[in-house]
Amino acid sequence: MSDTSDLGRRLRLAMVGGGRDAFIGAVHRMAAALEGGIELCAGALSATPEKALASGRDLLLPPERNYPDWQALVADESTLPPEKRVDLVAIVTPNATHFPIAKACAEAGFHILCDKPMTRTLEEARTLVRVVREQDVIFALTHNYTGYPMVKQARHLVRSGELGRVLKVVVEYPQGWLLGAPEKAGQKQAAWRTDPAQAGCSCCIGDIGSHCENLSHYITGLEMKEICADLTTFVPGRALEDDGNILVRYEGGAKGILYASQVSSGEENNLRIRVYCSEGSLEWRQEEPNDLQVRREGEPPATWRRGNPYNCAAAARATTLPPGHPEGFIDAFANIYRGVARAVRARLAGAEPASPKPDFPTVEDGARGMAFIESAVAAAASDRKWFPLKEWR
Amino acid sequence: MSDTSDLGRRLRLAMVGGGRDAFIGAVHRMAAALEGGIELCAGALSATPEKALASGRDLLLPPERNYPDWQALVADESTLPPEKRVDLVAIVTPNATHFPIAKACAEAGFHILCDKPMTRTLEEARTLVRVVREQDVIFALTHNYTGYPMVKQARHLVRSGELGRVLKVVVEYPQGWLLGAPEKAGQKQAAWRTDPAQAGCSCCIGDIGSHCENLSHYITGLEMKEICADLTTFVPGRALEDDGNILVRYEGGAKGILYASQVSSGEENNLRIRVYCSEGSLEWRQEEPNDLQVRREGEPPATWRRGNPYNCAAAARATTLPPGHPEGFIDAFANIYRGVARAVRARLAGAEPASPKPDFPTVEDGARGMAFIESAVAAAASDRKWFPLKEWR
Amino acid sequence: MSDTSDLGRRLRLAMVGGGRDAFIGAVHRMAAALEGGIELCAGALSATPEKALASGRDLLLPPERNYPDWQALVADESTLPPEKRVDLVAIVTPNATHFPIAKACAEAGFHILCDKPMTRTLEEARTLVRVVREQDVIFALTHNYTGYPMVKQARHLVRSGELGRVLKVVVEYPQGWLLGAPEKAGQKQAAWRTDPAQAGCSCCIGDIGSHCENLSHYITGLEMKEICADLTTFVPGRALEDDGNILVRYEGGAKGILYASQVSSGEENNLRIRVYCSEGSLEWRQEEPNDLQVRREGEPPATWRRGNPYNCAAAARATTLPPGHPEGFIDAFANIYRGVARAVRARLAGAEPASPKPDFPTVEDGARGMAFIESAVAAAASDRKWFPLKEWR
Amino acid sequence: MSDTSDLGRRLRLAMVGGGRDAFIGAVHRMAAALEGGIELCAGALSATPEKALASGRDLLLPPERNYPDWQALVADESTLPPEKRVDLVAIVTPNATHFPIAKACAEAGFHILCDKPMTRTLEEARTLVRVVREQDVIFALTHNYTGYPMVKQARHLVRSGELGRVLKVVVEYPQGWLLGAPEKAGQKQAAWRTDPAQAGCSCCIGDIGSHCENLSHYITGLEMKEICADLTTFVPGRALEDDGNILVRYEGGAKGILYASQVSSGEENNLRIRVYCSEGSLEWRQEEPNDLQVRREGEPPATWRRGNPYNCAAAARATTLPPGHPEGFIDAFANIYRGVARAVRARLAGAEPASPKPDFPTVEDGARGMAFIESAVAAAASDRKWFPLKEWR
Repeated sequence: MSDTSDLGRRLRLAMVGGGRDAFIGAVHRMAAALEGGIELCAGALSATPEKALASGRDLLLPPERNYPDWQALVADESTLPPEKRVDLVAIVTPNATHFPIAKACAEAGFHILCDKPMTRTLEEARTLVRVVREQDVIFALTHNYTGYPMVKQARHLVRSGELGRVLKVVVEYPQGWLLGAPEKAGQKQAAWRTDPAQAGCSCCIGDIGSHCENLSHYITGLEMKEICADLTTFVPGRALEDDGNILVRYEGGAKGILYASQVSSGEENNLRIRVYCSEGSLEWRQEEPNDLQVRREGEPPATWRRGNPYNCAAAARATTLPPGHPEGFIDAFANIYRGVARAVRARLAGAEPASPKPDFPTVEDGARGMAFIESAVAAAASDRKWFPLKEWR
Repeated sequence: MSDTSDLGRRLRLAMVGGGRDAFIGAVHRMAAALEGGIELCAGALSATPEKALASGRDLLLPPERNYPDWQALVADESTLPPEKRVDLVAIVTPNATHFPIAKACAEAGFHILCDKPMTRTLEEARTLVRVVREQDVIFALTHNYTGYPMVKQARHLVRSGELGRVLKVVVEYPQGWLLGAPEKAGQKQAAWRTDPAQAGCSCCIGDIGSHCENLSHYITGLEMKEICADLTTFVPGRALEDDGNILVRYEGGAKGILYASQVSSGEENNLRIRVYCSEGSLEWRQEEPNDLQVRREGEPPATWRRGNPYNCAAAARATTLPPGHPEGFIDAFANIYRGVARAVRARLAGAEPASPKPDFPTVEDGARGMAFIESAVAAAASDRKWFPLKEWR
Repeated sequence: MSDTSDLGRRLRLAMVGGGRDAFIGAVHRMAAALEGGIELCAGALSATPEKALASGRDLLLPPERNYPDWQALVADESTLPPEKRVDLVAIVTPNATHFPIAKACAEAGFHILCDKPMTRTLEEARTLVRVVREQDVIFALTHNYTGYPMVKQARHLVRSGELGRVLKVVVEYPQGWLLGAPEKAGQKQAAWRTDPAQAGCSCCIGDIGSHCENLSHYITGLEMKEICADLTTFVPGRALEDDGNILVRYEGGAKGILYASQVSSGEENNLRIRVYCSEGSLEWRQEEPNDLQVRREGEPPATWRRGNPYNCAAAARATTLPPGHPEGFIDAFANIYRGVARAVRARLAGAEPASPKPDFPTVEDGARGMAFIESAVAAAASDRKWFPLKEWR
Repeated sequence: MSDTSDLGRRLRLAMVGGGRDAFIGAVHRMAAALEGGIELCAGALSATPEKALASGRDLLLPPERNYPDWQALVADESTLPPEKRVDLVAIVTPNATHFPIAKACAEAGFHILCDKPMTRTLEEARTLVRVVREQDVIFALTHNYTGYPMVKQARHLVRSGELGRVLKVVVEYPQGWLLGAPEKAGQKQAAWRTDPAQAGCSCCIGDIGSHCENLSHYITGLEMKEICADLTTFVPGRALEDDGNILVRYEGGAKGILYASQVSSGEENNLRIRVYCSEGSLEWRQEEPNDLQVRREGEPPATWRRGNPYNCAAAARATTLPPGHPEGFIDAFANIYRGVARAVRARLAGAEPASPKPDFPTVEDGARGMAFIESAVAAAASDRKWFPLKEWR
C-alpha cells in the first residue's frame, strides 16, 4: 500500500517511449498503476512525433503535456512550477537512447526510472553515474526480477550468511523467440534488439544476460573478477550474438556459470538461479516465482513460499497478496515502482527515505551491468582464457 | 489494453467496503487500476462511519464523495448529473450485506461488481436476479478464478467438444488457514467468515466451495442434478462447517467430486480442477495458473501455457503479458474488471457489448451458487442419499 | 541384502500362474530375483496345461517340477522331502482362483504370496483367514505399494503421532486404460478384469480401489466405519463398474474421500494419497515414489526423499539404493518378497522373525479389503446414505 | 524378458570386486538378477583375500569358485572346460585396477562388463581398445544412465533428425555428498574417489563428469572438438578437484556447457541434460527418469512418458513395466546387462547379435571418456582458452 496520504497527493509521472506497438511501456504503466499513488500526466511516447501524440491521446494525456518528443518534454516540464511539474520520468525506449534522455532528465532534476541495459556503452554509463550523483536525483534501473519477493528472500538467506559462504553460482536465461529470425518478418521487438545501432554491442547478453548478472549480484553481493566467454550467432545474417556461455570467477573464490540464449527452442523466459553455499543451497526460477527451493545436506529440501510468516522482512514488504494467491511479473515490476515512489516521497517530504532503505537497482548497478556486457563481448573476441572485468567505478 | 479512448474518459467507480483492515478491497482497487481506464472517485469504505471516512482520506477520495455509509453514497450519487455520477459500484463487504447494497445500487441504475457468495440466502439471490433484470444493469460477480486465461482455455477445450463428452469432474479447494481457530485471536477475516450472522448458513462451502461449483460450471457448462454431502466442523466451538466432501451427479450423466476444506494443514489456496472427458482430460491448478495440463490416451501429456499462439481467442484476450512472464491472481482479477468495463463502455456508447460477449460471472451464476450452498447444507443435514439441487431460476 | 547365509541355502519358490501372456508373474519373478536369496524351482504357470508347460520351459524349470496345473503342483511338492520341497508359493492368477489355490497351499503347509484382491468373495476371505491361522503359514498379500520406502515413512509420521490426529484422508487412483474398451479387442488383462466370473463383483474398486483402501489403512491404521458410494459403468456393455466415488467416515471421526477410475483419459497409474492431520499433512504419489511431501502450517513445505539420514528405520530398511538413484515399482514389489523371505527364513531357522516384525500386508488385510469391496458394491446399490462396513473378522 | 531358452542354459557370470562394504557390486548383482538368465557362479570379491572369501560365502558361491584374488579367478576359470567356465566377468573395483583386470580377462577370452571410468589413464584405455578388438570379446562399460528408456527415446529424437540440427547441449551433474569431507571420517566410497592412486587424475570429472560426457555423446553423437575447463577443489586438503565447469565446442559448430559438482549442498544425483536443436529441444533428468520433456516453438511442451505406444523401438525394448509403474536406477542398470547378455548369447549360439544391435557403451566409449577426463584436467591447468580434445583412437 502506498503512503500517498502522507504527501497528500499522487506523484506525477512522465513517460518517454512506450507508445503504440511498444511492449514494455504498458508494463510500466500497469506497474505504476498497481503502486496506487502515481499518476501518469505527461509523455513523449514515441520517437515518431505523430505516433507519440496519437499514443498520448489513447492514454487520455492532457493535450498540453502530450509531447511530440522527449526534448520538448524535458524543456517544457522544467519550466512548470513545482506544484505542477512531473516528479519522475520513466524511460522505456530502445537501449541506444537511454543515455541522452536520462542525462537530460537528471540535469533537469527529474527522478528517473530507466530500462535496462542502462546505456549503449560503458563510457556513457560512467558518465551517467557521475551526473546522477552530481544532480542527486533518484535513479532506478528496471531489473524487474529483483522485485520478486522470493528473490529478496534468496538475497536475505545468502547475504545474512545463513547458508554459509558462497561456493558456486549457476544462473541461466534461455529463451526461444529469436530462433526463427522474427526480425526478418518485421517484428519490432526483434528488429531493434538485433540492430547494433539501437541495441549496442550485444543482443543476447545485453538483453537477458544482463539480467543474469544483475540477479546474481543482487542475491550474492559478489563482484565478478574475471570471465571466459563463448558467444555465438546461430541465426545466419544476424549482426549480434543470440547465445552466450560464460564461466565466471568471483572475487573471493566463488565460481560461476552464466548463460543466456534466445535460440533455445520452446523456452519462454526460463531465468533460473542456483546458489550453492557451504551450508546450503537455493534455487529460484522466474516462471514459478512464488517458490524458492532451499536445500541443506541431511535435511528434506524445502520450498519456501511467498507470503508466509517465515519470510524475511524484505520479502514481506514486497508482498501484496496472501500465500497461495500467486503474484507474477507485474507485481514484481510494481515493487520497483513502489520502492522508487517511496524514495521520491521521502525526498519531497524533505526526509531521507525511511528505514529500511529501498532496494531497487541503482545507477551503479547499471554501470556494473554495462561493464559486464562490454567485458563479455571483449572476452569472447579475445584469445585470453580469463578476461578481467572492466572497471565501471 | 482498455478502449478508454473510444469513450474519451475514464469510468467512474465507487466502492462499498474495502477500507482499513479489509483484504479484498485493495485487490479490487489493484484490479481496477490494471484495467487502465477506471477511476475510483467515490466510496463508503467501512460499516463504521469514522473508519469509512478515514479510509477514504487514505485513498485521496474527494471529500464530498467520501461517504460515511453506503446509503448516503447511493442517495447522493443518484442525484449527481450523468456526467459526474459514478458508472459502477464495487461491493466488497461481508456476505450478509451484499444483498441490500446490490439491490439499492441496481434500483438506482448503477452497474455492479459484487463479491461472492452473492447473497446470504437463496431467496435474496432470486430477488436480486429479478431486480437486476428489471433494471437492466450490468452485474458481475467476482468469481475471480474465471479470469485466468488458462481457465478460459479449459472452458474452450471442453465446451467446444474437442475433448469429447464430459464423464467426470474432480474439483477441490483445500486451505489450512482456519485450522488454528484464528477467529479466537480476533483475526477479522476469520471472524466474519465463521459467524452465521455475517457469512450466512455456511463457512467453508460458502467461501470456497462456491468457487469450486462456479469453476466447474464455467468450464463445463454442466448443471448439477443431485448431490450427496458430508460437512464437518473440525475445530471445536465453531458454528459453521470448516470442511466439506460432496459427491455430484450432473444432468446428462457425468459424475463429480467436489471438496473444500479450511483445515487442511499446510495448504494455501490449492484450488484444482480435473475434467475427464471421453476423448481427453485436463487439469488446472490455481497456484500455478499459467499452465493447463491436457492429456489424451496414447499421446504425451501436454502443458498448454498462457500467451502462446495455440491458445484460443478467449484466453488470448485475457492475456496481457508474453509467455514466460507469469501472470497471477491480480491479473486474473483484473480480467473481471476488464470485462465489466468493456460492457459498461459499450452501454454508455449506446451499443451492446461488441462481439465477443464479455464472459464474467453474472447474477444468474450468483444465484446458481447460492442454490448450491443451500443445497449442500441441506443435503448434509438430510438422511437422503441423493439430494436434488434447489431451484434458483 | 538378504540374510541368505544364515540359512546356508536359497528359499525355494513355486509359482502358480504367470506364464506366457501374463503380466504380473514376470513382476513377481523380478521381485524375487532382486531379493537375492530366492530360487524359482517349480511352477504351474497357466490354467492351460500346454501353455503351463511351455512357459516352464521358457524359464528353464526342471521338467519334473514343471507342472501342468496347480493341483499337481500342490500334490507332488507335498510328497517331496523337506530338503527339496518348495518353501513358498506365489499365486498370480486372476482373482477367482486365488481362494482354492491359497487354501490348498495353506493346508499343505506352504507359505504363500498371493495377488490382490485376495478372493472372489468376502465369505471366501473369512474362510482363508481361518485356514491360514489354523495352519500357521506365513501369508502375504501383494499390495505392493506398501513396499515403497516413502509409504513406510508416511506410515511412521502418521502412526507415531508426529502430525497429530488424522482429520481427513483423500486417496485416489485414476487410470485411463479401460476407456477404449480394450476387452473387446481381446486384451487379456482387460478381459478378465471386466468379467464377473473371473474378477468377482467389482472391476474398478476390486482392482485398484482396493489399493486405495489398503494404502489408507496401512498409513493411518484407521478402520472405515461407514461409506457412501457412487459406482459407474461409463463404457457401454461392460458388466462391472469402471469408476467409483466414495465418501468415507472412519472410526474416531476422521473423514475421507476415496476414488478410483479406469476411464480417466491420459492417466497412467496416478495413485495418490493425502493425509491431513491436526499438526501437519502429507502427500505421496506413486508415479514419483521417491518423494513424500510434508506440510505444516507456518513452515515451508518439505519434500522428504528416500535414502536420507532423516528417514525412519522402516523406510531405511526398505531402501536399497542411495538417495538420488531412483527406486521404482519393482524395488517396492521386491520389498514384499524381502519381508516374506525374512519371515520364512526365521521360521525355517526355528525362530520367530527377528525384531522388527515384517510389515507386509497379511491375510487379515486381504479380508478387510474384501469387506471394503463388497461394501462398496452394496453401498452403491443401496438407497441408504451411510452404509456400514461389512464385518470381516 | 531374456531369450534364455534359445541357449537352454543361464549365462555364467564372475564378479571381481563388490564384496562386503562395496556399493556398486550389489547393484550389478541386482541388475544381473533382473535380466533373468544370468547366474553368478564365481567371484574374487575383494582386494583383501579374507574379505573376498567371506563375501563369496555370503553370496553362497560354490567354494571352489570363490577366489581370493582376481588373478586366481582368471587363471583357474581359464582352465575349466567351456561347459563350466564363466561366460562373462563383471569388474566392479576402484578405477585404478580396471585396466589390469580387464586386460587379463580379455586375453583369457572372457566377455566383460566394466565400471566407469574405464581405466586410470588414457594410455591404458588405448591399449585396452586394442586388446579387446584383437581378442574379439564383448566389452560393455556401465555408463548405466544410457540404460534408461527415455534416454534412448532422447537419442532417437535427436539422432533421427526429428528435432533438426543440434545447436547447444547443457549437461550437468551436481551432487552434494563430498561437501562435508566424508573421506576424513573413513567413508570408503569417498576415500578412494579422492585418492589419486585409486581414482586417477580426477575425482569429480572422472566420477560423474564422465557420465555427462558419455550421456551427451550417447544422445547426440557429437564429438567434442575443444573445451575450456575450470576445475576447483573446494574442500581444503583434498588432492583432486570436487567441482568442474567446462565450456564445449563440438565438431560441426554446436556449443555446450558441461558441469559436475560433488559439493553442491543438498543435491543428490541431479544429472540433467538439455539438448537444444533447430526444430525443438528436449530435457531429461535422472531423478525423474520416466519423463522426457520435448518442446517445440509454438507448441505446448510435452512430457513423453515411458511405456507408451508413441515411444521409439529402442525405448520400448528397454521397458519392462507398463506406463505409470515407475522404473528406476536398477531397471536402467539391468538394461546394460540385458544388452550384454543378448550379445553374448548370440555369440555363443554362433551368430552375430540379432538386429537391432545392442546399444550399451563400448570400449571405444570408454576410451573417449578417458580422453575427455585427461583433456579436462589438462585444459584446467593450461592458460590456453580452447584446449583440443586428446586423441583416443
